[in-house]
Amino acid sequence: MQENPAGFPEVDLSGVRAGSPLAAPGKIICVGLNYRRHAAEAKMDVPDEPILFMKTPYTVQGAADDVVVPLGSEKTDYEVELAVVIGRTAEYLETPADARRHILGYAISDDVSERAFQLERGGQWDKGKNCATFNPLGPWLVPASDDVDPNALSLRLTVDGEVRQSSSTSDMIFDVDHLVWYVSQFMTLLPGDVINTGTPEGVGSGFTPPKFLRAGSVVEVEIEGLGRQRHTFVAHPLEGTR
Amino acid sequence: MQENPAGFPEVDLSGVRAGSPLAAPGKIICVGLNYRRHAAEAKMDVPDEPILFMKTPYTVQGAADDVVVPLGSEKTDYEVELAVVIGRTAEYLETPADARRHILGYAISDDVSERAFQLERGGQWDKGKNCATFNPLGPWLVPASDDVDPNALSLRLTVDGEVRQSSSTSDMIFDVDHLVWYVSQFMTLLPGDVINTGTPEGVGSGFTPPKFLRAGSVVEVEIEGLGRQRHTFVAHPLEGTR
Repeated sequence: MQENPAGFPEVDLSGVRAGSPLAAPGKIICVGLNYRRHAAEAKMDVPDEPILFMKTPYTVQGAADDVVVPLGSEKTDYEVELAVVIGRTAEYLETPADARRHILGYAISDDVSERAFQLERGGQWDKGKNCATFNPLGPWLVPASDDVDPNALSLRLTVDGEVRQSSSTSDMIFDVDHLVWYVSQFMTLLPGDVINTGTPEGVGSGFTPPKFLRAGSVVEVEIEGLGRQRHTFVAHPLEGTR
Repeated sequence: MQENPAGFPEVDLSGVRAGSPLAAPGKIICVGLNYRRHAAEAKMDVPDEPILFMKTPYTVQGAADDVVVPLGSEKTDYEVELAVVIGRTAEYLETPADARRHILGYAISDDVSERAFQLERGGQWDKGKNCATFNPLGPWLVPASDDVDPNALSLRLTVDGEVRQSSSTSDMIFDVDHLVWYVSQFMTLLPGDVINTGTPEGVGSGFTPPKFLRAGSVVEVEIEGLGRQRHTFVAHPLEGTR
């Protein structure tokens, strides 16, 4: 994998905070269970059609910013995902073949999740997806072009140097074109909106026993051609005070 | 019920389009099944804690604007709801008693829903809640004050003049103070954010046979002291072309 996508300059970021290249998306649509082996590890059926949930744009931050473990959380988890950034309004696209011209570019998302909040607190997943700092996005926004095949990119995530996720977007159940077309049947996609396209197997909750994140965990996330994230999980300042 | 809340001037809106008083909330958190008799009509258990899902702010529009029935939709439905507008950042509030000073004011929401998209397409509700035009909000944003008890307001919704919903926020399972406190445990509430606090019994899907909305349906929505909405449902321009 390359640190900098083709054509992007090398930048020395030492001592500098770099925010997300897309600080305020209009909305973030997330796709659940979109890789076959991840559906299996989650002990869920392969879905007949994409499962959609949402993250508020306030969760977005830079690829190197600290991520806060929610107060009292014991099941904070990671998810490497290909983020598709919309460039042109898309509503009721006729076919998946129409999707590509509505895409501005691609980035890395870590779709950070709190599994107890997501799965054990009423059944709607948004509750475990919207904690502050839960969507490191970037470092780059790589423009869509014929040089980038979003359906054949390798993805990789490590925790404290241990490889947890290693897969390819070619393993997605519903590919990028299908997802953009699909989402456009249910809501209007606008320039600057983001689709987090789902995560492959290897999430912390899939291990026996589970391997959740703790304050101090360092997560590195790479997608082929899109650069690399490295962020540290930290305790909330109120942790231990209540 | 009064047309204009105390202190608001009478305004002649004939020939004028009035947008929502809050055109671009940061996020909209919705509470599911928060009235006992609505949970019963939905054939779901009364939840142990609030169920949360989300609407994108793009769904917001004025109280009198037309609402578009999604392309191919057969189960478009209405939901009168008290909308709580946040005025001060709220994160990890200690108790529900802390909630009130974080509230800017109140408005009427029609939490328009497509029941097939919401309930029959994968289990996550957001898919049926985010179609364009699905959140008429307003007409007023009534400031929070000691004169407004958000937990004792009558609500009413009619379709083509027929009363479908008639209840009081006093019937909520989790009251406004509890909801603001609760949501703040899972995400950061920011000024301009909205909480749609749930709907009472009488939604279209609760009837046998169901009474869904069609192009031409006129919905009127009132909440005590917050004014009145009146909007017409219309077909999508592409309806019938595919």
